[in-house]
Amino acid sequence: MQKATLFATLEQAVVAGDKQAARATLEIAHAADIAQAIHEFTAEQAVRFMSLLSLPDHANLFGYLEPNAQAEIARVMTRNDLAALFSQMEADERADLFNRLSKEDQHALLPGLAQAEREDVRRLASYPEETAGALMTSDYATLRGHWEVRKALKRLRLEAPDKETIYQTYVIDGDRHLIGTVSLRELILANPDRLIEDLMRTEVVSAKVDDDQEEVTKKIRHYDLLALPVMDSEQRLVGIVTYDDAMDAAVEEATEDAQKSASVAKLDAPMNQVSGWELYRKRVFWLVLLVFGSLLSGAGIAYFEDTIAKYVALVFFMPLLVGSGGNAGSQSAALMVRALATGEVAMKDWAKVLGRECMVAGALGITMAVAVFALGLFRGGFEIAIVVALAMISVVVAGSLIGLCLPFILSRVKLDPATASGPLVTTIVDATGVLIYFGFATFILGL
Amino acid sequence: MQKATLFATLEQAVVAGDKQAARATLEIAHAADIAQAIHEFTAEQAVRFMSLLSLPDHANLFGYLEPNAQAEIARVMTRNDLAALFSQMEADERADLFNRLSKEDQHALLPGLAQAEREDVRRLASYPEETAGALMTSDYATLRGHWEVRKALKRLRLEAPDKETIYQTYVIDGDRHLIGTVSLRELILANPDRLIEDLMRTEVVSAKVDDDQEEVTKKIRHYDLLALPVMDSEQRLVGIVTYDDAMDAAVEEATEDAQKSASVAKLDAPMNQVSGWELYRKRVFWLVLLVFGSLLSGAGIAYFEDTIAKYVALVFFMPLLVGSGGNAGSQSAALMVRALATGEVAMKDWAKVLGRECMVAGALGITMAVAVFALGLFRGGFEIAIVVALAMISVVVAGSLIGLCLPFILSRVKLDPATASGPLVTTIVDATGVLIYFGFATFILGL
Repeated sequence: MQKATLFATLEQAVVAGDKQAARATLEIAHAADIAQAIHEFTAEQAVRFMSLLSLPDHANLFGYLEPNAQAEIARVMTRNDLAALFSQMEADERADLFNRLSKEDQHALLPGLAQAEREDVRRLASYPEETAGALMTSDYATLRGHWEVRKALKRLRLEAPDKETIYQTYVIDGDRHLIGTVSLRELILANPDRLIEDLMRTEVVSAKVDDDQEEVTKKIRHYDLLALPVMDSEQRLVGIVTYDDAMDAAVEEATEDAQKSASVAKLDAPMNQVSGWELYRKRVFWLVLLVFGSLLSGAGIAYFEDTIAKYVALVFFMPLLVGSGGNAGSQSAALMVRALATGEVAMKDWAKVLGRECMVAGALGITMAVAVFALGLFRGGFEIAIVVALAMISVVVAGSLIGLCLPFILSRVKLDPATASGPLVTTIVDATGVLIYFGFATFILGL
Repeated sequence: MQKATLFATLEQAVVAGDKQAARATLEIAHAADIAQAIHEFTAEQAVRFMSLLSLPDHANLFGYLEPNAQAEIARVMTRNDLAALFSQMEADERADLFNRLSKEDQHALLPGLAQAEREDVRRLASYPEETAGALMTSDYATLRGHWEVRKALKRLRLEAPDKETIYQTYVIDGDRHLIGTVSLRELILANPDRLIEDLMRTEVVSAKVDDDQEEVTKKIRHYDLLALPVMDSEQRLVGIVTYDDAMDAAVEEATEDAQKSASVAKLDAPMNQVSGWELYRKRVFWLVLLVFGSLLSGAGIAYFEDTIAKYVALVFFMPLLVGSGGNAGSQSAALMVRALATGEVAMKDWAKVLGRECMVAGALGITMAVAVFALGLFRGGFEIAIVVALAMISVVVAGSLIGLCLPFILSRVKLDPATASGPLVTTIVDATGVLIYFGFATFILGL
């Protein structure tokens, strides 16, 4: 269905307060698409539309809305309606929403929830952002080892409507220690009389509750999991992270890295939703900070003012040399940041990677030097050509090595390697390049 | 189990030719981890280890190996063994491997396969890389609308061992047109007497076989799917893309974009496996190309040589101004490239985004100008300060707009917006910056 048509249909249903029309839209469009259309509504319109739906449909649709939109809509709902919605939402989404409410709304909401739900929300909402705990849900299915397959299947059938997944189940002992996993595929293929403990896989991959979400997504990808169980410090099962949330987290991490790689601080919302003011705030810090880096280049130039005054032709080659160094450095930095993020390269590989980089950078430098030597001959004569060629090799090698090492160093001191962004590397390499270039010039031209 | 211990255990089994020991490793370690250890083996050692396993275990383990390692190992296997392995592998992985074999090996292999397998391999291997067709598998479960739930479950139980997933099933008519989908969760909750056509969802999300893999991963994320059905031009179901392959594709796309954003061409293998020679090739093209861009900056400087000779102090501020413009441009470009890649911003939003960017860039420029005006006063006097401040505003605004528009323009002419990389933007903005700066200087200082 066309987006515009869908929007018009929804709007009509809201204006008419037509329950039947509102519910019919769920038959002809996917909830994810209806959610997208609702993003164009005001919060009041959205509440009015969703009040026309059954509570389970309302909760399902609500789960597809952007977190910011959820919070905005929750703010204009009555407390009773919000409490009812809360009890129907998936545990992880509910906790995320709770964290976006004001302290006042949080306190007003909690008494309206059942005891178990209240505790579940409090617990899930308590984990720091971007950890396994913040990503996990408590809606998972558990089995016991002494059950027969028949009993397990019966239980799953009963619990299915409330669980985020029943395709992967977790076998626990009396203390909630995870002792194995069984997939629904294995269950329906097994003899109904078999015991779960004879069927389950005991080699279990899991995460700790305070693991970084990057670790979680790497594990889910590496082992091709539907869901990853999460344990507390006493090795008890406290939740699972499902593949779809892990996929969203992986894309988010990549976006964050892409922004950092251009010296932009992490945005709190998707690009189309952030305000100009937020964009300004997220960009100005690094831009101003990098001014101080550029001052080094300026100071370098000032230091060699005499050289420049004598051979103004040297200035012609400056953007070329300094720029090439910065470009080579950006390349190395981006390759390394991404390789560290995906786990393709680990900290312990640095010596091997550095060795290869020296060779590659040397080869790149020589290639560039050959090109630039001809140009130097043409514009400044033999001596200038020599200066420019030698400077080019040195600047490209220096730039590449700076770009390669910076992410490693940052990672070593527990900073995010992605901070070794293109602009940061370029600024550092620029200053280095100026010193190398005019240093060579002063030395070779005998100034 | 520790990686080093696992490696030693595997090596021992290979040396001793001990089947029992080899098979026991599968009990204590995940196949994904064994595969990782096998990457350290020579191809011959790997073949020897895998020959100790049962064929299904062999095929499963083989599926976790890196594509390059798979091809290397396939090359040293006997044709019979390779054909046997092929018939056990998952359909999508098999087709990928087939595409990595030499033409000669491909021809030698095909006669060893059963007719249906041969056609399946040929068909799946025929789709261009990075399309839905190349990503999909033919191991999916289909149901018919007139079946009862009971019959459907019985069929799924029979087919389960050969299908990549049975959790999502596809309902087709006699011409293989997709008429609906049913999840296993819905099947086991349903009354066994119900007809599939009464149970299925008819609002089906699907991809076309030649859709870009980026579209596929976006759909799987947007609709939280376990698998996305793929159709041919006649709307017949020809395959499905599962979430785990989509997740790998999403991470790959992000890596490719991160590399492109630093002017590195797409690498054919993970960072830790590419040779120095490949790295050189993938980097040298852009580095050399950007030299021509830098020449523009050089030419700009040469044009203003008289101005520079009179006020050498101007050169001190050049890296600062030009660098700030480049940095602001890199920020805009990175934000825009990523927003286009994730679908947060679409082509039609460009006017809105441009308006916001003008305001943000203006504010950034003024902030930077204030900082740099003080510096100008200190080092060059009032007139220089005015020149530097005005140039800073113009350069930052120009840089930001260039960074913002370039990805849009590239996308418009059907090029990958990610090519609007930091180094490319920086190089263009540098030349623009030189012209703006010395242009202002010449005008204001009345040279």
